[in-house]
Amino acid sequence: MAEKTKYNFVVAPEKVDFTLHATIEAICSDILNVAGADAKVKGISADVLMQHNRSWVLSRMSVEIDRHLGQYEEYAIDTWVNPHASRLVSPRNFELLDSESKIFGRAVSQWCVIDFEKRMPVALDEVDSLFEGKFCDAPSPCEAPRKVRGIEPQVVRKHEVRYSDIDFNRHVNTMRYIRMMLNTLPIEYLTDNRPLRLDIHFAKECHLGEVLTIGYEQRGEVSLFEIRNGDDAVACTAAIEWR
Amino acid sequence: MAEKTKYNFVVAPEKVDFTLHATIEAICSDILNVAGADAKVKGISADVLMQHNRSWVLSRMSVEIDRHLGQYEEYAIDTWVNPHASRLVSPRNFELLDSESKIFGRAVSQWCVIDFEKRMPVALDEVDSLFEGKFCDAPSPCEAPRKVRGIEPQVVRKHEVRYSDIDFNRHVNTMRYIRMMLNTLPIEYLTDNRPLRLDIHFAKECHLGEVLTIGYEQRGEVSLFEIRNGDDAVACTAAIEWR
Repeated sequence: MAEKTKYNFVVAPEKVDFTLHATIEAICSDILNVAGADAKVKGISADVLMQHNRSWVLSRMSVEIDRHLGQYEEYAIDTWVNPHASRLVSPRNFELLDSESKIFGRAVSQWCVIDFEKRMPVALDEVDSLFEGKFCDAPSPCEAPRKVRGIEPQVVRKHEVRYSDIDFNRHVNTMRYIRMMLNTLPIEYLTDNRPLRLDIHFAKECHLGEVLTIGYEQRGEVSLFEIRNGDDAVACTAAIEWR
Repeated sequence: MAEKTKYNFVVAPEKVDFTLHATIEAICSDILNVAGADAKVKGISADVLMQHNRSWVLSRMSVEIDRHLGQYEEYAIDTWVNPHASRLVSPRNFELLDSESKIFGRAVSQWCVIDFEKRMPVALDEVDSLFEGKFCDAPSPCEAPRKVRGIEPQVVRKHEVRYSDIDFNRHVNTMRYIRMMLNTLPIEYLTDNRPLRLDIHFAKECHLGEVLTIGYEQRGEVSLFEIRNGDDAVACTAAIEWR
């Protein structure tokens, strides 16, 4: 059995928004960097899978933020991997701790292994040997990612995918979807630094030069988002529940 | 007389572009963060000026990058302040060193003090007492920022200023102008990681909700940029010389 592993961070000036608090995008980016770094340490990273023409793909994520950290605050992210949630889904968990070790956030990410040649998900029992001794028996710290469906956009914005949006695959960087979504929100939602829960589902990759359509619907205290690719297919959906 | 001061960095994953090298924007952001941190340590920061209803404004910057660092590389930025370049302009210098202490870049920034009430620059002799013993006698490491004028855009893009673009004043974050400019370039200019020199001039602040016009002209080996605000006034100009 493995233990939780801790990674330390600081809210550097480039991580804050106009309220001088860490952005949701920056926190989620740190969470994903921790996932990558910890997978590397444990020998279950994309590099290892790549040798068999496979890779990890992030499918869904739930993130809860109780308090938005201020600029220069120190914090840590604890991470651990649970046994597979289903035949195709491997969960990785995160707890966010402030400088006094108080938990101020938590996250659950769900990953699939895809086969590059077949462009299909792979049953996790095929890679089970990699995970030997890597699971931790602590439960997930919050509810697994919820389904986000049935969005009826009230506001629609366009965004052309450019240089600063893409990762080494020339696909839109995962975190950019969150930026695009927050950029469609009325600014008032972002001035108050309310506690929140984010559920996000990545359905399709978007590419350099594609013009994306970002739809936003406000339903009570929940902001719903849907990003469609250049072919009008749903690429990403998300919900932010303001608490 | 003061010495150069060193600040240490690492090319974290959120600082790289699709080529897995540190972006110009990320390096410039670190340079400006160093300027802020070092001014604070030396007691010449905006906080101190703010007590007299004044603040620093970045007017121009020149940045030379000989080599684009890869993800996870460690580097350092040395900084120092020279005597005022003119009645209104205070220069701050930077040298960028890789993990083997080899200089891979350098920068000169030029700052003015503005009076918030009069919305006018202040003669630096009015704040001279602050600088006592703070100057370093090392010369600037590269040519001071050049004027960038006479741009005739061949390509024009629009950008509406949104949440992720603004700083605590609700003005466009200085570094976002660089992002907007690079996003108008043909991607080929950004795949080769060529050495470069950037000259940038900040003329006007842009605000949340403004629709900016980014003009780009390629003139031989120089990429020229002009950003106009919602009133069609020039807000920022820049030149990137590809070496």
